[in-house]
Amino acid sequence: MASKIINNIRWFLPSQDREKNSEYDEIVVSSRIRIARNLADLPFELKMKHNHCEQLLELLKNVLTGKLKGKFFGMENLSMLDKESLLECYLISPAFLKSEKPSALFITERGNVTVMINEEDHLRIQSLSHGLNFPEIASEAFEVETTIGEELIYAFDKKYGFLTSCPTNIGTGLRASVLLHLPALVFTNEVEKVLKGAVQIGMAVRGLFGEGSDTKGNLFQISNQQTLGMKEEELIDTIVKLAHMIIDIEMKARDVIMNKARYEFEDKVARSLAVLRSARIISSDEVLNLVSAVRFGVGTGFIKDVELDTLNEIILVSRPANIQIYFGEVLEEYERDVKRAEYIRKRLQAEKK
Amino acid sequence: MASKIINNIRWFLPSQDREKNSEYDEIVVSSRIRIARNLADLPFELKMKHNHCEQLLELLKNVLTGKLKGKFFGMENLSMLDKESLLECYLISPAFLKSEKPSALFITERGNVTVMINEEDHLRIQSLSHGLNFPEIASEAFEVETTIGEELIYAFDKKYGFLTSCPTNIGTGLRASVLLHLPALVFTNEVEKVLKGAVQIGMAVRGLFGEGSDTKGNLFQISNQQTLGMKEEELIDTIVKLAHMIIDIEMKARDVIMNKARYEFEDKVARSLAVLRSARIISSDEVLNLVSAVRFGVGTGFIKDVELDTLNEIILVSRPANIQIYFGEVLEEYERDVKRAEYIRKRLQAEKK
Repeated sequence: MASKIINNIRWFLPSQDREKNSEYDEIVVSSRIRIARNLADLPFELKMKHNHCEQLLELLKNVLTGKLKGKFFGMENLSMLDKESLLECYLISPAFLKSEKPSALFITERGNVTVMINEEDHLRIQSLSHGLNFPEIASEAFEVETTIGEELIYAFDKKYGFLTSCPTNIGTGLRASVLLHLPALVFTNEVEKVLKGAVQIGMAVRGLFGEGSDTKGNLFQISNQQTLGMKEEELIDTIVKLAHMIIDIEMKARDVIMNKARYEFEDKVARSLAVLRSARIISSDEVLNLVSAVRFGVGTGFIKDVELDTLNEIILVSRPANIQIYFGEVLEEYERDVKRAEYIRKRLQAEKK
Repeated sequence: MASKIINNIRWFLPSQDREKNSEYDEIVVSSRIRIARNLADLPFELKMKHNHCEQLLELLKNVLTGKLKGKFFGMENLSMLDKESLLECYLISPAFLKSEKPSALFITERGNVTVMINEEDHLRIQSLSHGLNFPEIASEAFEVETTIGEELIYAFDKKYGFLTSCPTNIGTGLRASVLLHLPALVFTNEVEKVLKGAVQIGMAVRGLFGEGSDTKGNLFQISNQQTLGMKEEELIDTIVKLAHMIIDIEMKARDVIMNKARYEFEDKVARSLAVLRSARIISSDEVLNLVSAVRFGVGTGFIKDVELDTLNEIILVSRPANIQIYFGEVLEEYERDVKRAEYIRKRLQAEKK
């Protein structure tokens, strides 16, 4: 399976055909849209029997492979390592990884849209992009949603909108999220205050890796909690505006750092890049923190010879399952730490040329 | 004064006319000989009056500048920064730095021998060299001792030998010491055992920087405690044999590390060199530890593009007073950390070419 999943990783890496919003790409690591849908003619999650699941998969396989270009994977055919790699690439959810129900994954040829079939809802359609890029990913996700909707009938209620397995998703079934890199707000100890503000206006916030003060890589995911009573456009508009507000606050914190602690900043960034370029053993958590510092350095123009795409790739390939897929072999933790360091050294060496 | 002291630093740096014992130069950082002498015609330390001190300085100034090439400094003419720099270059002792008595320092033109005048004893003649190099430095120190002895009469007792201010120096008045770099014995937790053995055979041992487990830079100084009842040659022979024994044990510990923890070793060395090459703020203590790792890497052949002399220079110039002398300006601690990082980056950059 390894080679197929490597393709997935490549798919996830920034598509060359996507436009870049380079002004924010360092702070807004990625944008994501997820649409929950269920079919009207099949029972919902808790009432589904085995034959309903098989029926769902059969229906979707026909529609998706018949009308769209892409790959359809029965999840039972994938190894645990492959599944973990898909999770690390944000192509499946943690719940989907653990699920023992018959389930499947569809990935479009361009890798921009994935459909989890038989997750909590019958369908979870997702589109993902680097940077702040909602119009494009929303249109991509809804294109797939529409294609399926032309062949199959979605569970829909005039009063509530689209029906979902869990009431928190009812209405639009839409969740929009941004992954933000906020090193200056973490450094100035303001991040908690800012994120609490986001929660107060109805957003869900979490550190991407680790919880609370243990957040690694200074990465924070913000997503809407409300799915009912707002139009899709309003939902997306709210999160885009919030992202811009947080970008502004992060930029102000950066100005403070540049004025008051420039050497500390440059020291941390330069050391972090030097360690990435020279380590012989490195954990994925350390990579997150070092890459965060270098990313900050790229964002401020202090580091000029490393591309953001390279850093995105390093974060992704460095994850524990992906690094094994990358080298095409099953590796123990210690071996992964050695191989990861080797991969990063070579990747950054290639960058220099 | 700054420019004169910079000359002193240059003098201390390995003289190009010294032969190198390259086999041990990484482990035996330096060898030192110190000879204590007093003049028969003047009272000893505790009974000296001001006029005796002045008389001593006058006598020695005439002999030293008359018969040897070098510079004679009245210590009262030096700033505290200059004195601290001399201490950091191992050219004066901590007691001499603090002394408020009239005192002076003579440094030979080649910088290989220094004479402290009116330290605890009337004369402390010292010779210093990188590597394990006792025959040469002993002959250099005794050459100066003889030159002075031809003009002035040393306090000498037929039964006890040379008389000194403190009974611990009586007899030969000779102290021989080696500065050993023992990273593998520290890593394998064997260093304490080994050094206790040295103490049991009558040696004094101390970490060069910091005490006990807080030893920085993995540097240990071993010197003879016994000065009475042994000939000079025997004393030196004992310490040379001991140095060789410890070198052997350190080498065995290195074999163990190379066999069992090669990646950890390479990781630590490569990261340390990378940080030295890229840091923007660095303390002198951190320099000690990073240089120790790189030195270890040079010793094992893992690092090929850095010279030991460069590392010796970096350690020396990085000390708090020397870095100010080097840049020719008085610097606060924070400014020193920034300037030190700048100096080290440039120094290692020059090395690469």
